[in-house]
Amino acid sequence: MDGGSGTGQTREIDGLKTSLSRLLPALEWGREYHRGFLASDLLAAVIVTIMLIPQSLAYALLAGLPAEMGLYASILPLIAYALFGTSRTLSVGPVAVASLMTATAVGKIAAVGTLDYATAAIAMAMISGLMLLVMGLLRFGFLANFLSHPVVSGFITASGIIIGLSQLRHILGIHGHGDTIVELVSSLLHNLADINGVATLTGAAAIAFLFWARRGLAPLLLRCGLADRTAAIIAKAGPVFAILATTLASWYWDFGQRGVALVGEVPRGLPTLGIPSLDPGLWSELAVSALLISIIGFVESVSVGKTLAAKRRQRIDPNQELIALGAANVAAGVSGGFPVTGGFSRSVVNFDAGAETPAASIFAAVGIALAALLLTPVLFFLPKATLAATIIVAVTTLIDFAVIRRAWEYSLSDFIAVVTTIAATLLFGVELGVLAGILSSIGLHLYKTTRPHIAVVGAVAGTEHFRNIERHNVITHPNIVSLRVDQSLYFANASYLEDYIYRLVAEIDGLEHVILQCTAVNEIDLSALEALEAINHRLREQGLTLNLSEVKGPVMDALQKSQFLKHLSGKVYLTHHQAVKDRKPDEIEPYII
Amino acid sequence: MDGGSGTGQTREIDGLKTSLSRLLPALEWGREYHRGFLASDLLAAVIVTIMLIPQSLAYALLAGLPAEMGLYASILPLIAYALFGTSRTLSVGPVAVASLMTATAVGKIAAVGTLDYATAAIAMAMISGLMLLVMGLLRFGFLANFLSHPVVSGFITASGIIIGLSQLRHILGIHGHGDTIVELVSSLLHNLADINGVATLTGAAAIAFLFWARRGLAPLLLRCGLADRTAAIIAKAGPVFAILATTLASWYWDFGQRGVALVGEVPRGLPTLGIPSLDPGLWSELAVSALLISIIGFVESVSVGKTLAAKRRQRIDPNQELIALGAANVAAGVSGGFPVTGGFSRSVVNFDAGAETPAASIFAAVGIALAALLLTPVLFFLPKATLAATIIVAVTTLIDFAVIRRAWEYSLSDFIAVVTTIAATLLFGVELGVLAGILSSIGLHLYKTTRPHIAVVGAVAGTEHFRNIERHNVITHPNIVSLRVDQSLYFANASYLEDYIYRLVAEIDGLEHVILQCTAVNEIDLSALEALEAINHRLREQGLTLNLSEVKGPVMDALQKSQFLKHLSGKVYLTHHQAVKDRKPDEIEPYII
Repeated sequence: MDGGSGTGQTREIDGLKTSLSRLLPALEWGREYHRGFLASDLLAAVIVTIMLIPQSLAYALLAGLPAEMGLYASILPLIAYALFGTSRTLSVGPVAVASLMTATAVGKIAAVGTLDYATAAIAMAMISGLMLLVMGLLRFGFLANFLSHPVVSGFITASGIIIGLSQLRHILGIHGHGDTIVELVSSLLHNLADINGVATLTGAAAIAFLFWARRGLAPLLLRCGLADRTAAIIAKAGPVFAILATTLASWYWDFGQRGVALVGEVPRGLPTLGIPSLDPGLWSELAVSALLISIIGFVESVSVGKTLAAKRRQRIDPNQELIALGAANVAAGVSGGFPVTGGFSRSVVNFDAGAETPAASIFAAVGIALAALLLTPVLFFLPKATLAATIIVAVTTLIDFAVIRRAWEYSLSDFIAVVTTIAATLLFGVELGVLAGILSSIGLHLYKTTRPHIAVVGAVAGTEHFRNIERHNVITHPNIVSLRVDQSLYFANASYLEDYIYRLVAEIDGLEHVILQCTAVNEIDLSALEALEAINHRLREQGLTLNLSEVKGPVMDALQKSQFLKHLSGKVYLTHHQAVKDRKPDEIEPYII
Repeated sequence: MDGGSGTGQTREIDGLKTSLSRLLPALEWGREYHRGFLASDLLAAVIVTIMLIPQSLAYALLAGLPAEMGLYASILPLIAYALFGTSRTLSVGPVAVASLMTATAVGKIAAVGTLDYATAAIAMAMISGLMLLVMGLLRFGFLANFLSHPVVSGFITASGIIIGLSQLRHILGIHGHGDTIVELVSSLLHNLADINGVATLTGAAAIAFLFWARRGLAPLLLRCGLADRTAAIIAKAGPVFAILATTLASWYWDFGQRGVALVGEVPRGLPTLGIPSLDPGLWSELAVSALLISIIGFVESVSVGKTLAAKRRQRIDPNQELIALGAANVAAGVSGGFPVTGGFSRSVVNFDAGAETPAASIFAAVGIALAALLLTPVLFFLPKATLAATIIVAVTTLIDFAVIRRAWEYSLSDFIAVVTTIAATLLFGVELGVLAGILSSIGLHLYKTTRPHIAVVGAVAGTEHFRNIERHNVITHPNIVSLRVDQSLYFANASYLEDYIYRLVAEIDGLEHVILQCTAVNEIDLSALEALEAINHRLREQGLTLNLSEVKGPVMDALQKSQFLKHLSGKVYLTHHQAVKDRKPDEIEPYII
């Protein structure tokens, strides 16, 4: 008894351990951690930190928030994701699309630069984090599947254009606001007279340098004798060079006096922890936007995570990712940050720099914290035009119009969904863009299922196979019509099937048997069952039998629970060949098999 | 040349005639009209008129509107439907569920009994009519398919309960309002002290008589020597007897002095024509409700129309029905009526009374118009309790809890959809009830497609057929895994398939070939194509080939437009048998076919 209960206890403890390390994947990689990992993780952390500083500042600017909030959003959230996330190399923090969505949502309820604006952005991170946590606990990860790849590509492409346009004002040194392409362009044109030459020159130079750095810097460094990997990593630090150079220029030539917008005073120190605003009015105003940002952020993050995991044969768990991203956003909410998610470029840098475990992200968080403590005075002279330049160059990689061509060539419904998403995002802003994308793709899918492809089939000579009479040379019998319904039967197409069969049957003389080949019928719901009962009844009145063949296991299980099989005028056959053999006129000789 | 152009013209004129009579089906039946039809149609019209008078008054009461509006809604709308409708026997007018929905929607913006309330109800008919017309012109009839049969049954059952409860106040002679079961019951209980004995007695007697009339009257009349059909028709006139008897009693014993609510003064005469309120604020407030009422009314009407058409081997065209119901509601809107649709009980009476063509409805409209001109003074003494009794008895036929049991026995998702619809309708009212029904059934359908049934299949010995290895005794080969995916591949399940295949492949040693049997794959969209490309790439890296078999024509057409087939590591086979024969190890002897 003792031994047994001991084993039981051990088993219970093992079970507990498994559940715990599923909830807290850090326990698993933490247990396996060794010195070899430490060296790789530390190196990756240094590289990622250097890259994250300009990125964090830039995305705070994009979100319309003070620069320090970009840094705050890159400290605790990284640690939270490292503890709960299933991806070993995903890097979480402010990203372009989520920052734009934050600006759009918060801009509806407060003016940029006000305390209310910052408060709302922090609350947004909190709400989005709680929503993600709840979705994770309810195991709603499958919801991400309803955003199709083409729709996501289209949405990100259109968002990239909006982001690029929204940053042009910092390059030109003029005012200009808006959530849609029309608002942005007209507001830029309207203020074009106020253009600032120095800001424009700085921005243009930074853009030119960053584009060149992306392709030209690594080969140059190689020629200077650097190792392959070192050259590739240093080339990724282009934005850091741009920031150093323009900050220096700005200080030396006093850009501030020349009307160039600078980052200015950035409070020194770590974020203070605190509960964000719990104002129910604010929460309900932000709820829909927070849901959209959560879904988009989750889909973006999971797709990055999957891509990287596949390269090292690792797996990520979408439901646990919801919890991890939820924890990261709650962490952003309690530490004065704004909505965060897994970003593509930062994760690729982390991966390429050789990060082995999420410890790399924890070290990077420490790096950003040090930057917040020590480096902020240096940022005073940094021109906003430089940050805008890094954003513009970064988002050009998001823009992928090829998806439109691919969709056009492949399928009309994918094409319509992509074009709808892009047009809605550009013309009505990111939130309606996402909604239009989701609804149009689901709507088109459902529409297609309402008019299923139904093929009249005949036997391929000398085989037991049946094929579409319009595509193949096949044998049919005058008293039988064989139909293959290429769709599950459910409420949305039940009456279509009814109409189709009645119309077909009315056209054929001498018909005795209708056989439905159910190879492609994966479900028959109650509405479809009622339709089949009506068809059976009506055909029987006309002296015809209704037969089914090749009904799948799960469908047959369901049919057996109903009265349908008892009322069926014909039979259910295991193969369509048997059905035809059984029902065809006697005078015709049997197939030679 | 002349002859040719003459024939062309004739053909053009024929084409024009066909389009015209499709738009105005009255042209078709009008052309075939003869004296035999006239006699049947006139008789049916008399019977329907007698039945419609109490029904119209009762549904006006249910909608919270003055009695005459019930009559108005039964004149022009009948004529409009007769001209445009494709059903030969459908009878259009006020019906129970649409009247309840009108009361719910209009009650949100005005108090019962006010002029604003009536104005809003008339505008509601107009908006709903225009919506139906637009949907008809856009050929959106297929939208009705998204309301599944179980959801509609559940919704109507729950609405019937709400309607019955809402009429109890007239029977008891007390106040009591509400859109949900909780509101209704608590409001009735709260006012129970004010109960009026005479009203209750009248109502209870009417209910008892009406229930008895439904079953006992026809046999009694038969015993009195009446012919079968005459007895059945007179038995349907139960409400008329109830109205006559209680009106007489009310006049004789002066119910009005005893605190019984009477119909009172009903303006004598025909409705005046006029454009309903075009206040944009009112229209936008009513828009969502009007859309819901339109959809529900359309679905109800088409299902009645189909049932009756099937009995006489006639056909109805859903898109033309949208236009006809649209015209009927616009007619209600310009003639002081409220939303109308095709009703079940009235149509059955029309059908059973022998109506041959929609002319019967035109004659019935004339009958109601005569009643509005001549009979209204008689209605003064009619107790509202009697009308409430006819409603209560009528809605008991709507209530069908059997649908819950059928759904429970047949499929979990149908059961969830029905229960959600009923619960939402009872607890949150008709509008949220309809929405919950539509969204839950679509959501459940989509959810099921995200986790398709995937069967590992093997060959049935001695045949070319492949079946699930878990359900049948089949032959498999160690180097091949054959998968039958029981679902179309699209964005919502593409990543599920990817994960499934990677997991399965990791579990099997010595695997060389993966073959997907695509009999049930009716579509591969762009997201799924990308997933297949990823699977192909990953399997190739692991030294495995990916093969497809039995790809359907339309799917193959799509694949050929992409690069996928060029990159495919394996082949596409016409039959799964060929695929396995080609890929199995040489040492195993071939099948004997």
